[in-house]
Amino acid sequence: MISIDQYINQGKEIIENVLKNQLSNHHFPSSLHQSMTYSLFAGGKRLRPILLFASYDTFAQDTTKVYKTAAALEMIHTYSLVHDDLPAMDDDDYRRGELTNHKVFDEATAILAGDALLTYSFQIITEDALLSDEEKLFIIRSLAQAAGPEGMVAGQILDMEGETKTLSLEQLEKIHELKTGRLINFAIIAGAFLAGVKDEKLTHLKTFAHYLGLIFQVQDDILDVIGDPEKLGKPVGSDVDKDKSTYPNLLGLDGAKKQKETYEKQAKQALEKAGASEDSYLLELLYFFGQRDH
Amino acid sequence: MISIDQYINQGKEIIENVLKNQLSNHHFPSSLHQSMTYSLFAGGKRLRPILLFASYDTFAQDTTKVYKTAAALEMIHTYSLVHDDLPAMDDDDYRRGELTNHKVFDEATAILAGDALLTYSFQIITEDALLSDEEKLFIIRSLAQAAGPEGMVAGQILDMEGETKTLSLEQLEKIHELKTGRLINFAIIAGAFLAGVKDEKLTHLKTFAHYLGLIFQVQDDILDVIGDPEKLGKPVGSDVDKDKSTYPNLLGLDGAKKQKETYEKQAKQALEKAGASEDSYLLELLYFFGQRDH
Repeated sequence: MISIDQYINQGKEIIENVLKNQLSNHHFPSSLHQSMTYSLFAGGKRLRPILLFASYDTFAQDTTKVYKTAAALEMIHTYSLVHDDLPAMDDDDYRRGELTNHKVFDEATAILAGDALLTYSFQIITEDALLSDEEKLFIIRSLAQAAGPEGMVAGQILDMEGETKTLSLEQLEKIHELKTGRLINFAIIAGAFLAGVKDEKLTHLKTFAHYLGLIFQVQDDILDVIGDPEKLGKPVGSDVDKDKSTYPNLLGLDGAKKQKETYEKQAKQALEKAGASEDSYLLELLYFFGQRDH
Repeated sequence: MISIDQYINQGKEIIENVLKNQLSNHHFPSSLHQSMTYSLFAGGKRLRPILLFASYDTFAQDTTKVYKTAAALEMIHTYSLVHDDLPAMDDDDYRRGELTNHKVFDEATAILAGDALLTYSFQIITEDALLSDEEKLFIIRSLAQAAGPEGMVAGQILDMEGETKTLSLEQLEKIHELKTGRLINFAIIAGAFLAGVKDEKLTHLKTFAHYLGLIFQVQDDILDVIGDPEKLGKPVGSDVDKDKSTYPNLLGLDGAKKQKETYEKQAKQALEKAGASEDSYLLELLYFFGQRDH
């Protein structure tokens, strides 16, 4: 077995090659292609594809089968960042230390590049020669449910509306669950489903994914208080300034850290019930996410 | 047989009921739902769903089978209008005499409502109980190809880039073919495919759809010169003012009308080759589009 760092680097290399291949054989106008490619290769950590690989690896061999699904997932994640950064939304000039899409191109191109990535993600699943029709439809349905008005987009609306109010922990968790949790859940479930996992075991994996998503968010909030701006590629303290509802703001810094540990225990239990062995990379990724510094 | 006016009204009523049902049974945040619903019911002519119904009717019985596909198509068309109207794109305050989405809600909500409509359109096809898996995947693939970076979005980018140059007739047709033609083509092909039409006959229907799309655009351009602003729900002459490449600007008003007649003949021939009978509503819709006053 390779170390978790090696596993992550390997996954990153795989997904970047898959994305490169997918985008090289295209018939898009060149400005659209440039804008899509710019954001797809703007230094993403590729966490979602890596989770998908790890979920598949936990239950089956040869991740080649999930490459296009991983690419579709990363395209959807990327489109959401491009639209999120727009002046009418978060109005961010930088992401991961790089200029955002609409700053390099223009707003209209950024809107269209996001639309194109979203649409293309569904297209490439229909063109995936390694999946059966049933598998393709499961993936498309799950991805649309996770990303659309019942999932991520719902989370973005609620997040926007919540910016001006103080939210309860329950409301905060609901928003995170929709905004970031649903795509993380998709990564875990899609990987396991394509590896042949069914029924009750999938339900336990949903529980695992639920807590993993929350851990991810708590750590994001903690890093916004104590993180290193250099490593994060963005200023810290922006959530404190905005008086936003975050875990540290609601529970204090120590309270947030304790909450994270509770989530870790619950996630680990669910993963065991799903039948994952102790050397599953999903478990290592769980701790990795909880400790990450950017 | 009912008259073409009755056929259009009947199709309009059907698609609006289907959309209402589809949107009533939802789990979306209420502001998102309101924004999506606002634009879906902002007075659209429902031309694409009606074309889809007519294409299906030409080759089979009982259009119930294509209801969800028609709803998905209208959602994609609507999302494209919502994003097109944004300040960063065409910056339109009115459409069909009604305030545009971002004027009623705000820009962020309009962006997200468009994203939601796009994503949800794919979701409802996966949930369509009347289609086989093979049919669902054909529809999703064709719709994504028609709407995404190889289709409509490509047309929008090229249209934007073309606004500052004088285009040749060939370049102009390419843009229209992508921007409006691809979804019209989808309507025709999806209807016929779900009615069991195959192979060579589908190819002739593609040719029909190609000319139908061009007729649609020529008439749009003509109406911008000689149309009645009351009926159109928008000011006329905006293309002339902008010194935009349009059929009348390139060929003169009479030249544009002649071009339209040539397209009509070519479309009619292709429809005959596809095996449509003379009383097909597709043929009546062809003339209807060529004569419409709004």
